[in-house]
Amino acid sequence: MTDYAKATAQIIAAGRFLAAKGWAPATSGNYSMRLGDGRIAITVSGYEKGELTPEAIMLIDANGVPRDNRKPSAETLLHVGIYAVRKDCNAILHTHSHDATVLTKRHKDLKALVLADYELLKIYPGINTHETKVKLPIFNNTQDMKKLRAEVEPFLADGIPAYLIRGHGLYGLGRTMAEARGIVEATEFMLSCELELRS
Amino acid sequence: MTDYAKATAQIIAAGRFLAAKGWAPATSGNYSMRLGDGRIAITVSGYEKGELTPEAIMLIDANGVPRDNRKPSAETLLHVGIYAVRKDCNAILHTHSHDATVLTKRHKDLKALVLADYELLKIYPGINTHETKVKLPIFNNTQDMKKLRAEVEPFLADGIPAYLIRGHGLYGLGRTMAEARGIVEATEFMLSCELELRS
Amino acid sequence: MTDYAKATAQIIAAGRFLAAKGWAPATSGNYSMRLGDGRIAITVSGYEKGELTPEAIMLIDANGVPRDNRKPSAETLLHVGIYAVRKDCNAILHTHSHDATVLTKRHKDLKALVLADYELLKIYPGINTHETKVKLPIFNNTQDMKKLRAEVEPFLADGIPAYLIRGHGLYGLGRTMAEARGIVEATEFMLSCELELRS
Amino acid sequence: MTDYAKATAQIIAAGRFLAAKGWAPATSGNYSMRLGDGRIAITVSGYEKGELTPEAIMLIDANGVPRDNRKPSAETLLHVGIYAVRKDCNAILHTHSHDATVLTKRHKDLKALVLADYELLKIYPGINTHETKVKLPIFNNTQDMKKLRAEVEPFLADGIPAYLIRGHGLYGLGRTMAEARGIVEATEFMLSCELELRS
Repeated sequence: MTDYAKATAQIIAAGRFLAAKGWAPATSGNYSMRLGDGRIAITVSGYEKGELTPEAIMLIDANGVPRDNRKPSAETLLHVGIYAVRKDCNAILHTHSHDATVLTKRHKDLKALVLADYELLKIYPGINTHETKVKLPIFNNTQDMKKLRAEVEPFLADGIPAYLIRGHGLYGLGRTMAEARGIVEATEFMLSCELELRS
Repeated sequence: MTDYAKATAQIIAAGRFLAAKGWAPATSGNYSMRLGDGRIAITVSGYEKGELTPEAIMLIDANGVPRDNRKPSAETLLHVGIYAVRKDCNAILHTHSHDATVLTKRHKDLKALVLADYELLKIYPGINTHETKVKLPIFNNTQDMKKLRAEVEPFLADGIPAYLIRGHGLYGLGRTMAEARGIVEATEFMLSCELELRS
Repeated sequence: MTDYAKATAQIIAAGRFLAAKGWAPATSGNYSMRLGDGRIAITVSGYEKGELTPEAIMLIDANGVPRDNRKPSAETLLHVGIYAVRKDCNAILHTHSHDATVLTKRHKDLKALVLADYELLKIYPGINTHETKVKLPIFNNTQDMKKLRAEVEPFLADGIPAYLIRGHGLYGLGRTMAEARGIVEATEFMLSCELELRS
Repeated sequence: MTDYAKATAQIIAAGRFLAAKGWAPATSGNYSMRLGDGRIAITVSGYEKGELTPEAIMLIDANGVPRDNRKPSAETLLHVGIYAVRKDCNAILHTHSHDATVLTKRHKDLKALVLADYELLKIYPGINTHETKVKLPIFNNTQDMKKLRAEVEPFLADGIPAYLIRGHGLYGLGRTMAEARGIVEATEFMLSCELELRS
């Protein structure tokens, strides 16, 4: 299997998993993987994420320029920005969940979600105990991707595994697709607990 | 595939999707598509929506008159009324969700649900930013379909993508079945968030 | 297909449906159908309801006496009692849902659940409008089946489509298995709404 | 089928069931069975619990020493500790559910969860009526497995069917895998009801 074929298969499988969880309503969300040669496989805009086919995935270069005449995800710049800063990251999953939306809209002024004392924190790279705190930044939503990319950049440099956009959703970063999936699943689990614990 | 056969297949697939979401309990809801010749394919009354077969779908004309001796959905007049006013609409999905029922019963005097600052608002035709408000009317329930059709009409002329009936459910309108499905899914997502945010 | 074979197939299908909804946790619940000759097909005690096979269903007579040496459901007497009073009833489904349990435990002194103004009320036999009230009795739980059967009896004579047992679950009655399934699904939907509306 | 092959098949099936319920997010949890010769089949660390294969399961001896060079679950000592004290127990399932996490984090000082008057209590061995109380201990989370094993031990000797770890999850014990699964499912059901009843 070529590197691109492998990425395509892993993105399709991730879409099926995330849509089944209800985290990709109405074609929302976008997923990508960095290939060995530095190019990026990313979802094309507008497809049902639970029913992706190879045609729903396309190649862009490291600057986000499409390699064919299809339209990549509207949030391509955010993916490109992450890969530019985070050499350790090779897979990105962006979900739209009910709980992430309610949490970030209810707590309008919250600038970060602090997760503490969860056994599941151990899913994050480098964490071996629940006796710790992980701080995930929450950015206000904007349609200006350049602006958002710039806001996210300093936090990426700090090594965050995930971040939230208000009224919008979650970005999870992994060295592999399996890790990205684990980070998204564990983060959605913990933020769902937080939503309930804070109400 | 003929136009009718295509509509039948799309209605069956929509039913499977909506029932799996829990939005078609106990045979409730009804779905239709406008064919190229102006006639309408619509669900027959009383079938499980997650297990529709071609026999559970029938033809009516633009006035709602059945083309055979089966009984179309009790809400046929609402479908016909939508197609009469909205030349852009070719697919209608009507769901009965727990959240739509609780929201409209809890807020007894609410005449419209205002959705603001959701990224998912971009699923509605013509909307390109979350920084907007979409107002979905809520009608009191009635068994008098003529009365309800007349109440809905002026709002349809305004171009609404969806509306609610109190203690009953949601109507979503699409240019295509895929669009109607996206509108229903995104609207159910946002109203579910609103239910939680308002409590 | 013989009458018994048909009942068996319908009970197996009902179990798969109810377990998928989460209304049959840990082998709980029991289901039955009255055959044309007055005997009753009922689930054997202790099987996973989502994975029933013909061996998990047995024959009892109208008095609840087993036709072989297996142990029918612990609540056989309730089924027999329903069939004795309700000549219109040929299928009974008994579920254990989270929402029925919380509702009846939270409202400890509630003697009946009144459901009003739901479109889904039309699923009950003889009801053609949401503008009505249906009163479902709630009985305190007991392990004394004779006592419970006697308490339920006068309400059955009044034609109730369903009743609740506190901290335990729901009984739904249908002329056919399809009707019993619809009654259970609609009742679980409405009681779930009530649980949220009353909190 | 050998004893080990049977245990492997039952652990794989349990994983599929528990993951579908949402109780094994992001590879979390661990499952084991005691074989006829006293050795233990246990899940290897780090696999998706809904997609286990025979390679994800390994043999350890009664002291927790691996029989090959793979790494068993981080909580192997707890499993070994249970089998040492409880001769009646042959299957252990450890889940990470949202509700168990929220319940134990919200009620920070709660030392035990008391379950009373649930029909589902009858799933626990030796209980024939809902008119009883079952007390499940809640331990504070720790990464020190020796310490936790010692804390749990006296409660195991008392015959508890399950226990909770704060911000972490549930352990369920069965004579057979079917019993362990029933105990986990019933306990998750009741603790989910308790979470709602106490809020």
